[in-house]
Amino acid sequence: MAQPIRFGILGCARIARKVSRAIKLSPNATIVAVGSRSAEKARRFIDDNGLPDDTRAHGTYESLLDDPEVDAVYVPLPTSLHLRWATAAARKGKHVLLEKPTALCVAELDQILEACEANNVQFMDGTMWMHHPRTAKMGDLLRDSDLFGQLKMVSSIACFLAEPDFLQNNIRANPELDALGALGDIGWYCIRMILWSADYRMPRTALALPNPAKSEVGVLLSCGASLHWDDGTVATFYCSFLAHRTFEVAVVGSKATLTLRDFINPFQENSARFTFGSTDHVVPTELPQEFA
Amino acid sequence: MAQPIRFGILGCARIARKVSRAIKLSPNATIVAVGSRSAEKARRFIDDNGLPDDTRAHGTYESLLDDPEVDAVYVPLPTSLHLRWATAAARKGKHVLLEKPTALCVAELDQILEACEANNVQFMDGTMWMHHPRTAKMGDLLRDSDLFGQLKMVSSIACFLAEPDFLQNNIRANPELDALGALGDIGWYCIRMILWSADYRMPRTALALPNPAKSEVGVLLSCGASLHWDDGTVATFYCSFLAHRTFEVAVVGSKATLTLRDFINPFQENSARFTFGSTDHVVPTELPQEFA
Repeated sequence: MAQPIRFGILGCARIARKVSRAIKLSPNATIVAVGSRSAEKARRFIDDNGLPDDTRAHGTYESLLDDPEVDAVYVPLPTSLHLRWATAAARKGKHVLLEKPTALCVAELDQILEACEANNVQFMDGTMWMHHPRTAKMGDLLRDSDLFGQLKMVSSIACFLAEPDFLQNNIRANPELDALGALGDIGWYCIRMILWSADYRMPRTALALPNPAKSEVGVLLSCGASLHWDDGTVATFYCSFLAHRTFEVAVVGSKATLTLRDFINPFQENSARFTFGSTDHVVPTELPQEFA
Repeated sequence: MAQPIRFGILGCARIARKVSRAIKLSPNATIVAVGSRSAEKARRFIDDNGLPDDTRAHGTYESLLDDPEVDAVYVPLPTSLHLRWATAAARKGKHVLLEKPTALCVAELDQILEACEANNVQFMDGTMWMHHPRTAKMGDLLRDSDLFGQLKMVSSIACFLAEPDFLQNNIRANPELDALGALGDIGWYCIRMILWSADYRMPRTALALPNPAKSEVGVLLSCGASLHWDDGTVATFYCSFLAHRTFEVAVVGSKATLTLRDFINPFQENSARFTFGSTDHVVPTELPQEFA
């Protein structure tokens, strides 16, 4: 096996705890450094997350990017900081694993991707369910036109009920930090599921559902859209911080329908279910996966 | 127990076989007569469906409506004939169980309802899943705001893959007979599920999804819409004759989500499932129910 990728964690956001665990569990990656706005905070993150004592604690993001033993950075910073720090990482020759949503708009993402290409580093976003073995198994069935036929419709719903404190104080409800709100946080997953189901063929039209809910400071708390392809394929999604935890998907083909109820976080750590046609499938996972 | 309702079947459409069986199984209803465009056809229906030999076979619809021992008629005729025959039945003092879709437009339905009111007879439509014990159980949970909270979103999908022969010859694809196509046949159920979930509060806005699929003769083969309430509640539905058999519902509240995968025809004859929150429910049925 090749040398494991040596990761530096750029920022100590809460999501970094989950991804750090995943990197630790992965046989082909290791965490060698953590960067924060203070060395104390970085050290505390190292201790709290059971990283080895020799993991380096950097007191600035710049210092982490200058660490010659860091191959790749995981960037869990708020969305508004992605452009600055993802491009900075690329310019320092670090591969970039960027938390989603990747950027506030396509133009920003294009700049990030250009920086990665120009510096010959890999770009990957933090859409974790894409890498679950269940997704590979579902993809095998969907791509088999004898089994699935043609794609006709995708419906995807992603909701959780945010506490008042979240809506007041969480970065995902702060227009200066994660300005895309529910759309960026969980609508992102719905859109990815739709595009993945369509094998990344782009729709001709995307129509927002009217009257999305916004917070007092203008952040999207719930919204939805429909997407339309030239061949008649239709997709709808709905995402909300104001509704019960729901992660439903139906992918309807001419010959079979795929459904799952936990597409973002599987209900179980060591296996995950879906139905295809009238068959229930259970996909075991070799490594324990973050679960609901 | 009161005297059973004495039904006359007005027309021998295929759906009449299923509903005749249900009426036979029901302890408070009985079939006493069948009317068709020929007495032979009516007699054949009586024989084929195991109705008692003394069931009267009428050779015209008018003759059935003049039968003094018929309390109520079940009308499985194509939609374009509903206005004529449902109002005729009401004028003859017969209660009306009208197959769905009830009419080609609201104005026609209003005429039917007015005729029923003016003649003091009961009107009921043929939305069979409304009367399944599962629906009552789901309703108890949805109406309990401690359990369900506020309604936020409903998604409903109803599809089946019609054979070429169906698309060419079935009355549900014939603009002279069931002109509403997939919308009237199965979109009807989606809309009912949405309105039932919303306790019949009417949405402010209904928006069709663009580019529905139509047959060469202009009948809807697939379509969808989104519905929007003033309080922010959203619903979407999609129906299609061109996709795999799919009868999915998700009803998302602030405190729980209800899902079911077979809302039109339960998978089982003697029980039916749904999930509410993280609990699977199985509702037994006293009488065998039409199933998928």
